[in-house]
Amino acid sequence: MSTIFTKIIKGDIPSYKIAEDAEHYAFLDINPLSKGHVLVVPKAEVDYLFDLDAESLGKLFVYSQRVAKAIEATVTCERIGVAVIGLEVPHAHIHLVPINGVHDIDFSKPRVELTPDEFASLASAIAANFE
Amino acid sequence: MSTIFTKIIKGDIPSYKIAEDAEHYAFLDINPLSKGHVLVVPKAEVDYLFDLDAESLGKLFVYSQRVAKAIEATVTCERIGVAVIGLEVPHAHIHLVPINGVHDIDFSKPRVELTPDEFASLASAIAANFE
Repeated sequence: MSTIFTKIIKGDIPSYKIAEDAEHYAFLDINPLSKGHVLVVPKAEVDYLFDLDAESLGKLFVYSQRVAKAIEATVTCERIGVAVIGLEVPHAHIHLVPINGVHDIDFSKPRVELTPDEFASLASAIAANFE
Repeated sequence: MSTIFTKIIKGDIPSYKIAEDAEHYAFLDINPLSKGHVLVVPKAEVDYLFDLDAESLGKLFVYSQRVAKAIEATVTCERIGVAVIGLEVPHAHIHLVPINGVHDIDFSKPRVELTPDEFASLASAIAANFE
């Protein structure tokens, strides 16, 4: 069975897309820790990040760097934090989270709520800054 | 002035070393979120992870993958989580944290306490599994 992220990549489940190429797909987390929280996933359906072959792993983070720079160019923040937990969805994914303090990456904290219009315009704005 | 991590890399400040090569240094976090929590740093003194050039960034994560596999081979855990926050020390560093639950990466939680002997034997055991 496909993972939820594979369904998102295929368009079977809608997402607020930021960018994609042949091997990667980036989209807004709809339960964001902060405005501009993005998930970057490899299109290959690998559960555990460190099970990716070394080349794919390196490319995934280099792609995430490009996404991080687009987020930084769009939302106000100190920098972009990175987290990979991966116990909830069996498909490797990198959290890119705009942060201003050391405790801004805490998955137990309340999430930011945005309307569909806000999500859509935020995704467009970040996508426009993606290089 | 050198960062604390540069002093650790140079040996001016002691650390429980796991591995190093020409560009990277890995050592135990002495305020670990869990037993086996390791920091991987580039030897280049770059403050912000995403200011690394793309090649160095990719290599840093590929090196971290090798360290993660050594940790997994040594301590009991579900998998190795990844976090990069970077607001406290102005020298990019990747946290590799053995986790068993989604909230195991929470930097506000109490740290695990180990004796110097426990740190030393843990570092030796992880280093012996590094390939």
